[in-house]
Amino acid sequence: MWNKYNLHRMRTLQSVTENVISVSFKRWHSTKETAYSSPIIPMVEVKRFIFDCMKAVNTPEEYAHQMADMLSEADYRGHFSHGMNRLDMYIDQIQNGVCDNTAFPQVLKDFGATAWVDGKNALGVVIGNFCNKLAIEKAKQFGIGCVSVKGSNHYGICGKYASDAMKEGFIQFNCTNTSPLSVPTRAKTSFFGTNPFALGAPANNDQFLLDMATTTVALGKIEVAVRKGAKIPETWALNVDGRPEIDSQKALDAAKLSPLGGPEHMGGYKGSGLLFMVELLSGILSGSKFGPHIERWGKLTKPANLGHCFIVINPECFAPGFQGRLEDILNELRSCPPVDPQKPVKAAGDPEKEHMKAIDKAGGVRYVKNQMETCEDYPKD
Amino acid sequence: MWNKYNLHRMRTLQSVTENVISVSFKRWHSTKETAYSSPIIPMVEVKRFIFDCMKAVNTPEEYAHQMADMLSEADYRGHFSHGMNRLDMYIDQIQNGVCDNTAFPQVLKDFGATAWVDGKNALGVVIGNFCNKLAIEKAKQFGIGCVSVKGSNHYGICGKYASDAMKEGFIQFNCTNTSPLSVPTRAKTSFFGTNPFALGAPANNDQFLLDMATTTVALGKIEVAVRKGAKIPETWALNVDGRPEIDSQKALDAAKLSPLGGPEHMGGYKGSGLLFMVELLSGILSGSKFGPHIERWGKLTKPANLGHCFIVINPECFAPGFQGRLEDILNELRSCPPVDPQKPVKAAGDPEKEHMKAIDKAGGVRYVKNQMETCEDYPKD
Ligand SMILES: NC(=O)c1ccc[n+]([C@@H]2O[C@H](COP(=O)([O-])OP(=O)(O)OC[C@H]3O[C@@H](n4cnc5c(N)ncnc54)[C@H](O)[C@@H]3O)[C@@H](O)[C@H]2O)c1
Ligand SMILES: NC(=O)c1ccc[n+]([C@@H]2O[C@H](COP(=O)([O-])OP(=O)(O)OC[C@H]3O[C@@H](n4cnc5c(N)ncnc54)[C@H](O)[C@@H]3O)[C@@H](O)[C@H]2O)c1
Repeated sequence: MWNKYNLHRMRTLQSVTENVISVSFKRWHSTKETAYSSPIIPMVEVKRFIFDCMKAVNTPEEYAHQMADMLSEADYRGHFSHGMNRLDMYIDQIQNGVCDNTAFPQVLKDFGATAWVDGKNALGVVIGNFCNKLAIEKAKQFGIGCVSVKGSNHYGICGKYASDAMKEGFIQFNCTNTSPLSVPTRAKTSFFGTNPFALGAPANNDQFLLDMATTTVALGKIEVAVRKGAKIPETWALNVDGRPEIDSQKALDAAKLSPLGGPEHMGGYKGSGLLFMVELLSGILSGSKFGPHIERWGKLTKPANLGHCFIVINPECFAPGFQGRLEDILNELRSCPPVDPQKPVKAAGDPEKEHMKAIDKAGGVRYVKNQMETCEDYPKD
Repeated sequence: MWNKYNLHRMRTLQSVTENVISVSFKRWHSTKETAYSSPIIPMVEVKRFIFDCMKAVNTPEEYAHQMADMLSEADYRGHFSHGMNRLDMYIDQIQNGVCDNTAFPQVLKDFGATAWVDGKNALGVVIGNFCNKLAIEKAKQFGIGCVSVKGSNHYGICGKYASDAMKEGFIQFNCTNTSPLSVPTRAKTSFFGTNPFALGAPANNDQFLLDMATTTVALGKIEVAVRKGAKIPETWALNVDGRPEIDSQKALDAAKLSPLGGPEHMGGYKGSGLLFMVELLSGILSGSKFGPHIERWGKLTKPANLGHCFIVINPECFAPGFQGRLEDILNELRSCPPVDPQKPVKAAGDPEKEHMKAIDKAGGVRYVKNQMETCEDYPKD
């Protein structure tokens, strides 16, 4: 990955890496280094590196911090595809003038508990944070808030926005449309993106955080299968003809993801409905680009004009004791008798929590040269 | 089904049936009658029959009308499991004093765009309509409204509430928890219900209406497979040991539904998250019973105390032209090239629209003796 950077960023990176190697080698004598992986890098260094790279392309400091927080959070949670791995994409888009890293979103309409925002083609993360804060303010004032935004860019992982609102005691939902990559039930060609959403809620000393693409899997999981030479389940993806494909290489070549559920008779039409639901709340409500009109991923020559939706709910407006009940059901769920005693039942958000614990224990994160190897090194099971 | 009714209702039914037979025979000479099916019954007669039955057990007229509208709507849409088929359950619960058909819900908290309601163990449909109207009022005033309710009963199909709000130009979301019948990923035993939700939005001369249980299928679909002697996909249900079961009889005996997606490696952990999400918004937010604490289906000896959530959004608060954009994407979706030319791509809500058209064309609905046969006679493909 590093060699994709231009010279200036390369130098920034090298100095970071040197620092980090010395730090991590002093602290982690037993650290194994493989041909593929970096040494363990403390999260604070990860943030500093991203911040420096963003500053190097003239991003205002405040926005550079927001980018560093978002991307490091993705890696911290184990969603490596959306962390450091995306940094060069963000920087390319800034350098090519496709995304305006100095811009700031603008409220176009403000009515009661709602707001409609133009992202002004600013950094997606800056836009996302702005809208999320606005929705939180609305929820404080009205019990619920809803903010819809157009003119945005890739805004990172949905879970980060939910997480921020949960810290203030709120239930949070957010979603985004993305470049076409998934095929609706019965269709042959891509129409929707992976259209992810998150729904998070705080509990006493605990939380529920569902953060998921509405396709069965992301393309990255198919890449991992290809590397392993493994077959994939028929609910994951289609071939060029639009039929379920279990050969991972053919599925990767076709790049046509299945809606959650897979083929129609297995329930995929419901996933297809979820993909549409996210598109409706993201693109149709905000007036951004939508569905097949969104630019192909990684080929941006003009602004992406993505749409997102942020809904924040104050649970205190309803039955008292919300956080206690949520704590109870989370614990009851986790103590369900498992089919395989080696695989305990988890709540949404638990795998990420475990990943963060492991990073904390190791003192940092270990990067690998590309996403496929990253995935192999960090199985989420 | 008819013979489950007590004498009074039996008489009501007989007179209805006689009326209907004469009416339908006059109008539909070619109507085939099979051993299993009733003649075609006009929807207005269906409503009248339900209304009369509800009145016969001392339901106030206004509430009896609401029940008639809900149950007939379910049949009209082709969701026969939730229409006339459920009438005897509602009546049994009223006669056994488990549900109070004269009660009316009460607002416990009203803050800004939100309200928390106690259903007072009234008819679920009466509670649902009350809360939906309240959420619509909130959306008129604040752009969005959210109503959470506890102390409720089975409230029918989610799509009806979405449909009512859509008629007034709103986007509507609603969901309910239900009796334990589905098994979270990795678990062996039931924990959640089929936890359905609906998300509907109006378009110019069109609409999007996703109305789905968050399990892959309802139990009824497995019953149909048993009758046909057919195997079922591995994403539908589990056996007594909690493993995916493709033998429909074994799956029916175990009565353990899979979350949307099926087994973990096929994406079922996302469906598991959806089941939890609905439970969180229905049971945890409202303070009703939740998850495994909900009484088993059909065995009610005390109030069900279910929870629902209603969220209504006014699209006019966001980008102008919402209904036009939604119309566009619906049409673009339907014109995607299909894999099988015999099976055109559909949007959520289309199968129900087709069913309603067919009923209109036939002049009414044809009932069959039990749900399995109903399902066989009305395939939804
Ligand atoms: N901005 C974008 O364009 C975009 C697009 C797609 C995805 N994303 C992000 O990518 C990330 C990964 O998405 P994904 O769909 O691959 O997520 P995933 O499949 O790894 O996880 C989905 C959800 O399931 C939960 N989960 C995982 N295993 C579980 C188990 N055994 N039991 C119970 N719950 C379990 C997770 O905690 C998570 O909430 C997300 O953060 C998402 O927001 C972003
Ligand atoms: N109140 C309760 O306790 C309760 C519990 C469960 C279900 N329900 C109701 O039962 C009804 C049936 O639920 P279900 O999950 O069996 O629904 P379903 O599987 O028949 O349909 C789910 C959704 O998918 C859409 N759909 C179907 N085929 C499609 C296709 N080929 N392409 C695109 N979209 C398609 C439908 O329009 C619908 O919106 C719903 O109305 C639900 O609200 C109620």
